Amino acid sequence: MMTINPIQSAPSRRSTPGGQMTAAQRVLAILEAFDEDHLLLTLSEISRRAHLSLSTTHRLVGELRDWGALERTDDGHYAIGMRVLELGSLEPQGMRLRDAAHPYLGDLQVAVNANVHLAVRDGFDTVYVESLRARNGVNVLSRLGGRWPLHAAATGQVLLAHAPTAVQEDVLRSRLRGFTRKTVTDPNELRQVLAGIRRTGVAVADECITTDAYAVAVPIRGTHDRVIAALGVTVHHDKAAVNAALPALTMTARAISRACGSPSASRTPAAAPPVRAAG
Amino acid sequence: MMTINPIQSAPSRRSTPGGQMTAAQRVLAILEAFDEDHLLLTLSEISRRAHLSLSTTHRLVGELRDWGALERTDDGHYAIGMRVLELGSLEPQGMRLRDAAHPYLGDLQVAVNANVHLAVRDGFDTVYVESLRARNGVNVLSRLGGRWPLHAAATGQVLLAHAPTAVQEDVLRSRLRGFTRKTVTDPNELRQVLAGIRRTGVAVADECITTDAYAVAVPIRGTHDRVIAALGVTVHHDKAAVNAALPALTMTARAISRACGSPSASRTPAAAPPVRAAG
Repeated sequence: MMTINPIQSAPSRRSTPGGQMTAAQRVLAILEAFDEDHLLLTLSEISRRAHLSLSTTHRLVGELRDWGALERTDDGHYAIGMRVLELGSLEPQGMRLRDAAHPYLGDLQVAVNANVHLAVRDGFDTVYVESLRARNGVNVLSRLGGRWPLHAAATGQVLLAHAPTAVQEDVLRSRLRGFTRKTVTDPNELRQVLAGIRRTGVAVADECITTDAYAVAVPIRGTHDRVIAALGVTVHHDKAAVNAALPALTMTARAISRACGSPSASRTPAAAPPVRAAG
Repeated sequence: MMTINPIQSAPSRRSTPGGQMTAAQRVLAILEAFDEDHLLLTLSEISRRAHLSLSTTHRLVGELRDWGALERTDDGHYAIGMRVLELGSLEPQGMRLRDAAHPYLGDLQVAVNANVHLAVRDGFDTVYVESLRARNGVNVLSRLGGRWPLHAAATGQVLLAHAPTAVQEDVLRSRLRGFTRKTVTDPNELRQVLAGIRRTGVAVADECITTDAYAVAVPIRGTHDRVIAALGVTVHHDKAAVNAALPALTMTARAISRACGSPSASRTPAAAPPVRAAG
């Protein structure tokens, strides 16, 4: 058993006053220049994306490279370095969840032949701390480190349904971005979806991010039965596939919750009273 | 198919001149205060481990927290933030290898019921870019983001055996740290081990890091058949388990290599000439 301390997100990310970046912000701006669509950047691309002069960029990139935060390819591009992957793996929620969940996730992936992901909430986003893809799984966009707005993914909806009320209200007041025709972008509808998830314990998202796929997610609970993560599978667009995946998903969530110290997942259902012989 | 550009490690990590840290180095020193044995730190612990004043630490930790590089727990400890995990997942070698390897890794884990890991070389270390643990697998220390010296692990030995000669010579000249009684710490013995790996295509490490376990690893090849990663399994300390795992390991490495554009893994073995009817 292990304890996962709840993590507080920073209250708000300070906006950078125009041009007046601190030294730390300049370092972070360089790292921030990289994203899923920009894995490899030249020095001048980094400079442009980070809003820093070429000479400052050159100096800081050199220091980041010395440390291993950036790597340089043969053809002169830069990329995020192995050292960052190593550092990121120390993020305690992800690390402990992966430790608790690993054998069960593999079993689930094989049993339902679906993509499996484990997600936690980071502010208003859901972040995948683990993602296993089935060979014949649907082509999904979930991957380790992937990030989506809470309302748009089944895992995110589970996390949102159990988030503090203030977080829920902030999300419901915000503009809910649509990714497909079916993403829930109406606040009233989302409110009902969240209530449904709390009632049934399951989120089923129909083509919310990817078309031709159902995403099904359930909560993972830790000490005090607090929801600490969501476990999701993405199956082909077929109601029967959802129904087939659900028992295995529920079992897996219970096993991981137990490993995370959830009291309710550790209780064996009450045994029926012994039948008394008549007379 | 995909192409993986070879990554050049920084030529050397500059040592910090006493007390004269640059702003970037101070930021990195704070991140560096966290490791596997120090997942959660107080402000004063960070200050001590980063060799920074409490006031500098306080200011930089605040900026790093605003950005999401650090998180604060309810009880006032700090930890590496989800944003770093997200950023680290962009490291291109790891990302592309995970993408190419994922379905095969799950199959391998189930088939051999062993811990499975995928590692790349980072300088003189082997770093696990993926790690799946079997439920009944041996208790190993490999995990996502884990780092070991090349000579000490089977995956590392594979990577070292195929590393540039200069890297091999540097390692052979260095002090080879022992982790168990059986870690190869003698340079001449290591040289023979590496030659054996090049000849047979397989590294079998006997209790090199963990006692009571064999680690077995084979190379993953990319374009031009260059070795870009190593695929390893850790099995119980039993020669029969090694022999049983080897064909599945070899098949998996071939499938991943093919997905990574390896020409040799894409060639079907030449068919035997058709038997001619006599006469």
